[in-house]
Amino acid sequence: MATLTDIAVSGAINILTTFVFFLVFAVLRIQPVNDRVYFPKWYIKGLRCPPLWGGAFASKFVNLDFRAYRRFLNWMPDALQMPESELIDHAGLDSAVYLRIYLLGLKVFSPVALLAFTIMVPVNWTSSSLRLSNLTYSNIDMLSISNIRTGSRRFWTHLVMAYAFSFWTCYCLKKEYATIAQMRLHFLASENRRPDQFTVLVRNVPPDPDESVSEAVEHFFLVNHPDHYLTHQVVYNANNLSNLADEKKTLENWLDYYQLKYNRNPSKRPTTKTGIFGLWGDSVDAIDHYTAKIEKASREIALETEKTISSCKSVMPTAFVSFRSRWGAAVCAQTQQSRNPTVWLTEWAPEPRDVFWPNLAIPYFSLSVRKLLVAVAFFFLTFFFMIPIALVQSLANIEGIEKALPFLKPIIEMKVIKSFIQGFLPGIALKVFLLFLPSILMLMSRFEGSVSVSALERRSATKYYLFQFINVFLGSIITGTAFQQLSNFLHQSANEIPKTIGTSIPMKATFFITYIMVDGWAGVAGEILRLKPLIIYHLKNFFLVKTEKDREEAMDPGTLGFNTGEPQIQLYFLLGLVYAVVTPILLPFILVFFSLAYIVYRHQIINVYNQEYESAAAFWPDVHGRIIAALVVSQIILMGLLSTKEAAQSTPLLITLPVLTISFHKYCKERYEPAFRRYPLQEAMMKDTLEKAKEPNFNLKSFLRPAYVHPVFKEGLEIGNTSLNEELDGEPEPVLVPTKRLSKRESPSIVVP
Amino acid sequence: MATLTDIAVSGAINILTTFVFFLVFAVLRIQPVNDRVYFPKWYIKGLRCPPLWGGAFASKFVNLDFRAYRRFLNWMPDALQMPESELIDHAGLDSAVYLRIYLLGLKVFSPVALLAFTIMVPVNWTSSSLRLSNLTYSNIDMLSISNIRTGSRRFWTHLVMAYAFSFWTCYCLKKEYATIAQMRLHFLASENRRPDQFTVLVRNVPPDPDESVSEAVEHFFLVNHPDHYLTHQVVYNANNLSNLADEKKTLENWLDYYQLKYNRNPSKRPTTKTGIFGLWGDSVDAIDHYTAKIEKASREIALETEKTISSCKSVMPTAFVSFRSRWGAAVCAQTQQSRNPTVWLTEWAPEPRDVFWPNLAIPYFSLSVRKLLVAVAFFFLTFFFMIPIALVQSLANIEGIEKALPFLKPIIEMKVIKSFIQGFLPGIALKVFLLFLPSILMLMSRFEGSVSVSALERRSATKYYLFQFINVFLGSIITGTAFQQLSNFLHQSANEIPKTIGTSIPMKATFFITYIMVDGWAGVAGEILRLKPLIIYHLKNFFLVKTEKDREEAMDPGTLGFNTGEPQIQLYFLLGLVYAVVTPILLPFILVFFSLAYIVYRHQIINVYNQEYESAAAFWPDVHGRIIAALVVSQIILMGLLSTKEAAQSTPLLITLPVLTISFHKYCKERYEPAFRRYPLQEAMMKDTLEKAKEPNFNLKSFLRPAYVHPVFKEGLEIGNTSLNEELDGEPEPVLVPTKRLSKRESPSIVVP
Repeated sequence: MATLTDIAVSGAINILTTFVFFLVFAVLRIQPVNDRVYFPKWYIKGLRCPPLWGGAFASKFVNLDFRAYRRFLNWMPDALQMPESELIDHAGLDSAVYLRIYLLGLKVFSPVALLAFTIMVPVNWTSSSLRLSNLTYSNIDMLSISNIRTGSRRFWTHLVMAYAFSFWTCYCLKKEYATIAQMRLHFLASENRRPDQFTVLVRNVPPDPDESVSEAVEHFFLVNHPDHYLTHQVVYNANNLSNLADEKKTLENWLDYYQLKYNRNPSKRPTTKTGIFGLWGDSVDAIDHYTAKIEKASREIALETEKTISSCKSVMPTAFVSFRSRWGAAVCAQTQQSRNPTVWLTEWAPEPRDVFWPNLAIPYFSLSVRKLLVAVAFFFLTFFFMIPIALVQSLANIEGIEKALPFLKPIIEMKVIKSFIQGFLPGIALKVFLLFLPSILMLMSRFEGSVSVSALERRSATKYYLFQFINVFLGSIITGTAFQQLSNFLHQSANEIPKTIGTSIPMKATFFITYIMVDGWAGVAGEILRLKPLIIYHLKNFFLVKTEKDREEAMDPGTLGFNTGEPQIQLYFLLGLVYAVVTPILLPFILVFFSLAYIVYRHQIINVYNQEYESAAAFWPDVHGRIIAALVVSQIILMGLLSTKEAAQSTPLLITLPVLTISFHKYCKERYEPAFRRYPLQEAMMKDTLEKAKEPNFNLKSFLRPAYVHPVFKEGLEIGNTSLNEELDGEPEPVLVPTKRLSKRESPSIVVP
Repeated sequence: MATLTDIAVSGAINILTTFVFFLVFAVLRIQPVNDRVYFPKWYIKGLRCPPLWGGAFASKFVNLDFRAYRRFLNWMPDALQMPESELIDHAGLDSAVYLRIYLLGLKVFSPVALLAFTIMVPVNWTSSSLRLSNLTYSNIDMLSISNIRTGSRRFWTHLVMAYAFSFWTCYCLKKEYATIAQMRLHFLASENRRPDQFTVLVRNVPPDPDESVSEAVEHFFLVNHPDHYLTHQVVYNANNLSNLADEKKTLENWLDYYQLKYNRNPSKRPTTKTGIFGLWGDSVDAIDHYTAKIEKASREIALETEKTISSCKSVMPTAFVSFRSRWGAAVCAQTQQSRNPTVWLTEWAPEPRDVFWPNLAIPYFSLSVRKLLVAVAFFFLTFFFMIPIALVQSLANIEGIEKALPFLKPIIEMKVIKSFIQGFLPGIALKVFLLFLPSILMLMSRFEGSVSVSALERRSATKYYLFQFINVFLGSIITGTAFQQLSNFLHQSANEIPKTIGTSIPMKATFFITYIMVDGWAGVAGEILRLKPLIIYHLKNFFLVKTEKDREEAMDPGTLGFNTGEPQIQLYFLLGLVYAVVTPILLPFILVFFSLAYIVYRHQIINVYNQEYESAAAFWPDVHGRIIAALVVSQIILMGLLSTKEAAQSTPLLITLPVLTISFHKYCKERYEPAFRRYPLQEAMMKDTLEKAKEPNFNLKSFLRPAYVHPVFKEGLEIGNTSLNEELDGEPEPVLVPTKRLSKRESPSIVVP
């Protein structure tokens, strides 16, 4: 059992590691050669150029200004200085609200830690249960609830504290929910016009024998939203086109490279070989070769584009329908359109960047089956993931390899390699699995069919949290695989389960303290170092980067990674809430994590990450719900713990607590969640009226038309295929006189079907 | 243990009882004196007059036509003859769909019974587990699953049958859901214009320092639904007025009575006394006395009406807002209006008759607290209802009474009375409780704050079903009070509970057979006799009925009683599904119940019941959900049963079954439930367009204006208080020039708040 000294030693090691990481970071970040690794956000925004100091050649790569080294920690105040409103402008609302999760952690746990240390620690310390018993115990246990005698009246302190902590957490949560709902509405109402405010995604357009999808959509909305319908954009299945476009891009890149080479040395035209990777085959003039190839690719793309647009098969029964006003879009998104509730499904269109195009093709009826399949698969993944890993581990032993690949025998029998295989291989299987877990969960979420990247990440985050809750939290408390736990739980009675967990909770405190220091402190400090992007950038820069454009692409700013980051925070919330009453010594460690992470991620969001989409903090209801879940879990565990301590008279009070918490959650759901799901008509009308007064002649149609074009077509448009725009006009009959079509679309005549 | 012979005897007794009930009914119904008890529906519809055959005085009361007695069962085919479409016209969709629940029972259980008797009964019968054992057993057990040897491979039959029954039930449910959704939409789209199609109930209008509620509502909807808003009606707290109106009604009744008396005997003016009940005091001329009193009451009512309408305090922050089109109403009902989702709450207005006025005053914020309180109260009611009853029972014994009321001692000590008290009194406490249970549950639902009677009944039905499930179904299987069960369940492991229930299920078959015969067969036959309304009608007729109007009111047609009737049916669904695989002998009894009840209730709906509202079968999602729940319960119980029979290899297949069933439920919910909750815009638009084309000049405003006036005001209007209509015009400033107000209301100008 770990004593306070052990923890102190471990803490010192971790603090040292963290400090070293920060030191290394401080040195690396001021080297000009790393500038694109540590400040990519500014490059992307076009606010920073490659540093080109005058002076020696070396100073282009290494910072020789020694004064800069003295202020090596000054990134911290820098990170904190940017005000929140500026941060929202700079990095988006998602990032700003994400940071507020850490702040919320600080807000919740600072007073909790203070109360716990002034009231509960003395109460625990002055008890004498452990001293009088014959059990071995450590100083940490002296500070925990374990030190209190069975049936003691001191448990009232813990009960009162549980109430106080729960109320305080709920108060913070409510305040935060209100603030963020306010921020979201304010963000959505902020001045700039966004296409998604006018657009609704319509799915499952029913097939019509007489009309194409585009015609059916137009007629349906002209009839049912006569005064509001403006235009629409059908969705094409453009996967082939996507591949062709990628190919062309590579060719263009090579052409750039050879152009550059030729410009530098105009005396010699560069050559290349026609074989694979340009390694063998006939030698030809590179520039001519690639120019010809690009032309060919362009022709192919034009052909494929025409094929995609004209073929009925590539039109999906899905469309982005745009309205004249936000009011019209809000109405359409929130109402049921057709008698059959499985066709003409409307929902808010995600932001154009946020659309996950491949999933728009999934038919609606398969969605529920897909969800069921994923739920079953996730269940097995969570509870049985150890089985295939154990299998791999059993295969990856010496005898197994020798049997399968006998010719390797002489190598394996070497002592160094043998010990390596025996020592590392079994562990590696598990590590590899855990490394790939977020990707596996993301694949599962993709299969479920969400149509926006933000929704995918939210669903992945939920799964990852559940996995962590079962395999990290419960798995550490009740040793054994998740499946063994499940079987234990099934064979235990309903009120035994909290007892089992409750009794082992205090004993695991030291383990979790170590976990927080390794995973939380050092992990966060490692995040700022960006070791992986740093190495990859330099490797790419050295071997692959041919042009300035390549260098731009080699720079990998990354994103916040909501699907892995948020579940990690939630684990700390869970640990904090569970141990607040049981072993308060854990709280300072969590506070350090939250403050460290807040500073580090604020720095990263300002300087590094480049969010791919903006969901306007749509994830907050999930965050809120999971903290509430953690609170309820902590209350149930406390109930189990106290019931083993024969403090039965407190049971009714303890049962009331989760009931109240869940009621609070329901209240919050009713009060604040609509702000994240629906768009109030009052807001829409206000904004519409204001805009109409300001810009009465704004051409909304031409503003909305290009917004929801498949990115592949957009690229096609950029490279000069101007006729495409005409063809993407929603209706594939170019024979009709345009004026006629326009009149039909503008006039709000009612067509009785 | 009951044998087949016992069951046969019991069956014979119950069949006899049922037959006697029918015989008595057949005799009573053709007596002219009972006409208003057995055919009130026709009186209310104005299609039937009091029978006034010529001939003897006696024939006015007793049917002397002996030929009528021969055809004493011909009400049965009569009841079945009316086609469903006519039934919907005659009694409404609610009643017609209610009958379909019984039909659904027949549809589900007929093939199930057939299959069970051709396949499962032989399999059970030819086993020999019980014959070889030393246990006592009856013939009924020979037919049940108990007769199969532990670990036998014959259990595969039961497994396959469980799948077959589940699939058949789900198939029937899906078909029925589709049919009823279709019927509902057709009913709503049927030609007659209904005020609720244009009206939305707006709750929680936020207080405004500058505007009255009525003004605030008008401005808000003029701004946010400029093209669609038509008119609105604020809701007044008119409880005082309601009481005064009731008082006046009694006075008018007395006046009628004395007028009648005077008309019959013009020589003598009737007198009455001024004291209580007209029993003492000064004797005055009755007609003058009551005329004066009515005048006074009228003045009071006028005063109170004015007070109610002009006082700000009696205006509730609630309004019925009507729109120009169904489309406008559908949009408003389905969207969120304001940034704050707890104000300006919109929902479909219930049908005018269906509105539960007192609950319109409950503030929104208290609703969630009320729901929580009711949930807690219901929990205690369900699990601890035995405690107060046991208390009453312990008080209601001989010693208790003698102690409390010593003067009764000589009476109590009489042998007859003593044995009566000892034998009946303890039972009576329970009976009284069970008699009042539906009323208690209805009160609870009222407290929750639903604003329509139909919603109240639906919520009561849910509670009643839960109570029956726990106290009748589980309570009979695991003997002991509900609280003991709860404590057992909490102390048992999760997979022990289905085992406990599963093993006792086959043993309780005979009990439930008897239950079905007594409660189902005889109970239904008793329903047709209408003993209570019969007695009450004749008592009232004899003692109280003074005028023809009184007689009209003494006639108590009653309603379907969804809040008690539906849970009863559901109990039979539950029993049928649970015992289909375990003891198929139960099925014929359930089939008899369903067919008997179908005929009886069809007769009652045609001839007796007078529904107070029409919710267009809004209850079907509840019915569907509860049958699914019963199916899942039956599957879990079978799983528990088979796991004790060491048929473990079937467990994965058995676990799959509830998972599939729940997925099916989710699918149905998505596919059909919206038809019961929302109103598709396509439908609304179609209907609007059609109506506009048919009646372009229809004055919708004057059609909608009186629909949602509080019934008290309506009565006020009828008795000639014509100025009231003007005052109820929505705005309480009669000084304004009407033209000005109208122009303001008609023009859809946008007023920026």
